[in-house]
Amino acid sequence: MSGITLIGTGNMARTIGTLAVAGGNTVEVMGRDQSKADDLAKALGGGATTGKWGAVPAGDVVITALLYDGVVPAVAHYGDALAGKVIVDISNPFNATFDGLAHSEETSIAQEVAKVAPAGASVVKAFNTIFRNVLEKGRPNVFIAGDDAQAKAGVAAFIESLGLRPLDVGGLKMAHWLEGVGLVTVSLAGNGVGHWDFALGVNEFTG
Amino acid sequence: MSGITLIGTGNMARTIGTLAVAGGNTVEVMGRDQSKADDLAKALGGGATTGKWGAVPAGDVVITALLYDGVVPAVAHYGDALAGKVIVDISNPFNATFDGLAHSEETSIAQEVAKVAPAGASVVKAFNTIFRNVLEKGRPNVFIAGDDAQAKAGVAAFIESLGLRPLDVGGLKMAHWLEGVGLVTVSLAGNGVGHWDFALGVNEFTG
Repeated sequence: MSGITLIGTGNMARTIGTLAVAGGNTVEVMGRDQSKADDLAKALGGGATTGKWGAVPAGDVVITALLYDGVVPAVAHYGDALAGKVIVDISNPFNATFDGLAHSEETSIAQEVAKVAPAGASVVKAFNTIFRNVLEKGRPNVFIAGDDAQAKAGVAAFIESLGLRPLDVGGLKMAHWLEGVGLVTVSLAGNGVGHWDFALGVNEFTG
Repeated sequence: MSGITLIGTGNMARTIGTLAVAGGNTVEVMGRDQSKADDLAKALGGGATTGKWGAVPAGDVVITALLYDGVVPAVAHYGDALAGKVIVDISNPFNATFDGLAHSEETSIAQEVAKVAPAGASVVKAFNTIFRNVLEKGRPNVFIAGDDAQAKAGVAAFIESLGLRPLDVGGLKMAHWLEGVGLVTVSLAGNGVGHWDFALGVNEFTG
């Protein structure tokens, strides 16, 4: 059981927050619009609290549940308030035609977050390959990437508390390729696979 | 059932060739070393034949079962002999440390093949995300990418003849991201997931 803080009050924050409360985690919500944060915390129940936008989060694991282009600015705004925290980036920087990433270089939102994060903070990419509706009703695999083994272990424990299987794909540079897996997933759905009721994950063949 | 030509005589050619014969396809083998091609054709059985390296392949679907850095040179060498063919690139251009691709630009071996392929040839990326041992004993999903819908349909029919599920991820530029999925798969295996007895594929949640 972890203490987590959700930065963001949208649909993905609601879904992860709901799972987090059900998994016995302590949840805090922070939103630029304080009334939305209050509403979400109330809706989540389970003793969920709110914190002020930009203040030091109560949770050790801080999930930026924001649209991709808001993540780096938010982390930069929080600045030293995130010192020592594990920042979890869940975003997908798709381009406008959903057939590539918004950045042309071999980077990721997670890697860009690491550049602006304060000393002592660690960044982990997770959850970006999973459609929200799948997270609400299924038990998909959750790919994670990050350079700090201890931070990844903390995120993995949080994921397991949700009843999900974390899959470690390696260092933070692999976040770029996880964004690619997000893209492949959306492309498959767009081509009629699985009616958006699927996630990519491990299929084992031990026969 | 399709007529396929394997360019290459290594382990992956043997595995795909074995499945292709079992699936009722007509199989031709081409190798730079003619005796190796003869040996593989004999081992495959099922009326498998050989053709001369660089000659016009008998199959409509031509699978380049070569190490990644041999694929573009081979296609360039074949040149007009591949006119009208569907060229299937199955390679993974991993870097030396298996944590990135050998090319730093947003391309893929499949896209580079398309640049040197003759007029009327089409290129499809497929099979690159699957370990050979999984192909030998399981029924993994096979991701495919290509710009030519008819060519992709032909490759999909071939994949179905092997008892496998083709998953269309879109145009040839998605081949870059399929190479990334190959990288994620290898990284997962390197981190202890699934003892190399797995493939990434679709997990459906229809509950």
